[in-house]
Amino acid sequence: MASLSLQHNTHHFLSRALPSRPKPKPTCVRMSLQQDAPSIAVVGVTGAVGQEFLSVLSDRDFPYSSIKMLASKRSAGRRLTFENNEYVVEELTPESFDGVDIALFSAGGSISKKFGPIAVERGTIVVDNSSAFRMDEKVPLVIPEVNPEAMENIKIGTGKGAIIANPNCSTIICLMAATPLHKKAKVVRMVVSTYQAASGAGAAAMEELELQTREVLEGRPPTCKIFNQQYAFNIFSHNASVLPNGYNEEEMKMVKETRKIWNDKDIKVTATCIRVPVMRAHAESVNLQFESPLDEDTARDILKNAPGVVVIDDRESNHFPTPLEVSNKDDVAVGRIRQDLSLDGNQGLDIFVCGDQIRKGAALNAIQIAEMLL
Amino acid sequence: MASLSLQHNTHHFLSRALPSRPKPKPTCVRMSLQQDAPSIAVVGVTGAVGQEFLSVLSDRDFPYSSIKMLASKRSAGRRLTFENNEYVVEELTPESFDGVDIALFSAGGSISKKFGPIAVERGTIVVDNSSAFRMDEKVPLVIPEVNPEAMENIKIGTGKGAIIANPNCSTIICLMAATPLHKKAKVVRMVVSTYQAASGAGAAAMEELELQTREVLEGRPPTCKIFNQQYAFNIFSHNASVLPNGYNEEEMKMVKETRKIWNDKDIKVTATCIRVPVMRAHAESVNLQFESPLDEDTARDILKNAPGVVVIDDRESNHFPTPLEVSNKDDVAVGRIRQDLSLDGNQGLDIFVCGDQIRKGAALNAIQIAEMLL
Repeated sequence: MASLSLQHNTHHFLSRALPSRPKPKPTCVRMSLQQDAPSIAVVGVTGAVGQEFLSVLSDRDFPYSSIKMLASKRSAGRRLTFENNEYVVEELTPESFDGVDIALFSAGGSISKKFGPIAVERGTIVVDNSSAFRMDEKVPLVIPEVNPEAMENIKIGTGKGAIIANPNCSTIICLMAATPLHKKAKVVRMVVSTYQAASGAGAAAMEELELQTREVLEGRPPTCKIFNQQYAFNIFSHNASVLPNGYNEEEMKMVKETRKIWNDKDIKVTATCIRVPVMRAHAESVNLQFESPLDEDTARDILKNAPGVVVIDDRESNHFPTPLEVSNKDDVAVGRIRQDLSLDGNQGLDIFVCGDQIRKGAALNAIQIAEMLL
Repeated sequence: MASLSLQHNTHHFLSRALPSRPKPKPTCVRMSLQQDAPSIAVVGVTGAVGQEFLSVLSDRDFPYSSIKMLASKRSAGRRLTFENNEYVVEELTPESFDGVDIALFSAGGSISKKFGPIAVERGTIVVDNSSAFRMDEKVPLVIPEVNPEAMENIKIGTGKGAIIANPNCSTIICLMAATPLHKKAKVVRMVVSTYQAASGAGAAAMEELELQTREVLEGRPPTCKIFNQQYAFNIFSHNASVLPNGYNEEEMKMVKETRKIWNDKDIKVTATCIRVPVMRAHAESVNLQFESPLDEDTARDILKNAPGVVVIDDRESNHFPTPLEVSNKDDVAVGRIRQDLSLDGNQGLDIFVCGDQIRKGAALNAIQIAEMLL
């Protein structure tokens, strides 16, 4: 278990929504430390996604011969225990990548831009969680369940480095559900409204939401450091910069990444991205317009059989996906599957999707990419 | 000031989000108690909307010769002070309406269904906040800024009773912003996703959200009486019953009421209604598709000049409408006004709308209807 704590007052009902920590496993069944397995590095190991990388690596028994814990100078020297071994967090330098086969990056765009190419030069395959390289034509943007073929030319053990980009959390969660339907009936237009959790802005944002909520309940002014306004008992337009066309960067990621992942420049997407006071899982209301008719029963069957997707769609008991229910879970949940009344001829569907932002929206997807390299 | 308290631990930052109470006004400037003014009754006076009726009547100096405070047997006998006069809450009976010109109803659909026709028989004009009569062809469904003409045949002082229905909160808030654009370019299709506050389910739901939040922060299991699941730090599909077509009743209200209010049976609407942990104001992400082109600058100008609408659309400082900012406010706020990238030829717009659910979504709209009768 990592001795690095995220300093939350964790407890059951809120902690369900907080970043998970790698669970200790009995050494006798743990096969990870293997001589012939790749050497890996985690860049940004002290962050919310970095901690989740460790948790997911452990959960999935990801094989490795060695693992480096990398972070900024500020965090260097901190100790953490991972799978019964003690590690010292090292400062990220160009030399950090010597002998590293796979590096999982989640330390922000500027760190990726600087150290991604350095790692590649040294023969490392980088799986990057930032937006730095997502729209780079030479970099595959991959959701393993959706477009694994995009990275088929990248091989481990050749000594040749490469970058593979992890899509933005909102895009991953949306496309996990939309893609199986797209493959059946071709989506021509998609209208998305998001309900995004604090975790997308990092562990500090989750702490601020918890702190603000306590403050507001005590009648005190809320601390606004990460966000410029009250988050507790409020919602607001996503904090990403707004571009000249009126969309914010988060929304344009959904538009552009969908086109790249589906390899279709004509796909029409509009999105409105909103933060809601939820800890770690995103929800999305997705309206899909198809080229060919698709009825809701066929859609539900397709989704029930889609990898990484679980259908929660019980109309009678009003049980549908919620962010809390998918927190700390791998699968993306889909419900409210219904024929869109505003389009004739079964040409549209409305669905509601929830997925853990830190897990499938970031760490899990990256590690699934790494697994495809093995 | 009403001595009836909603038993909240009110304080500044949360209380901004709680139902307001009628403010005391100096008697010397208060002109309400007027011999020639209508006699009024408030049905459901102890509820969240009932309390807001009093607050709005007072704020707007609504003239009345007498006012009856009506509620269920359970609340009868309670005392409240309103505008420096003491009142005893009376049990609602058929005789309650004798001599009453205007009755403001907010006591649920079954009370409206039973007592609405009784009031009408006794010559009372009922402004009903429930869904009981909204889709009745003989009953006008009115947003005063949108379709005042629908109630032009109903007159006070003729001795003839009538029912006028207040639309559902989500419909009012959406159409306050969409109608001025519809009048310019004709909306052909509307895709709405809502972010709905606790208040729509009544004062008890607001109390439950506050209680649950305290419990979750203290690591205790959340009390789930009003809703069947955790609301604190979570969002979920609206608790209204789900119909065989997969839409819930809240969503179908948006579909059907829009058609009735705009007097256009062909208008295409789809909606996804979601509860978010916010106290008293709703938000809605609205995608509009027009018959004629409408550019975003024209749309912004139209909205700036629309009655009851305020535009908050500052891209540079990322300042857009929030539920907290419109809480206890009369105006509906609109922002994120931008050309929809997914439609060619300026044929679409995305907007984000926030409005106080208890005020413009219920009490204020009803009292504006009553004002049109004067």
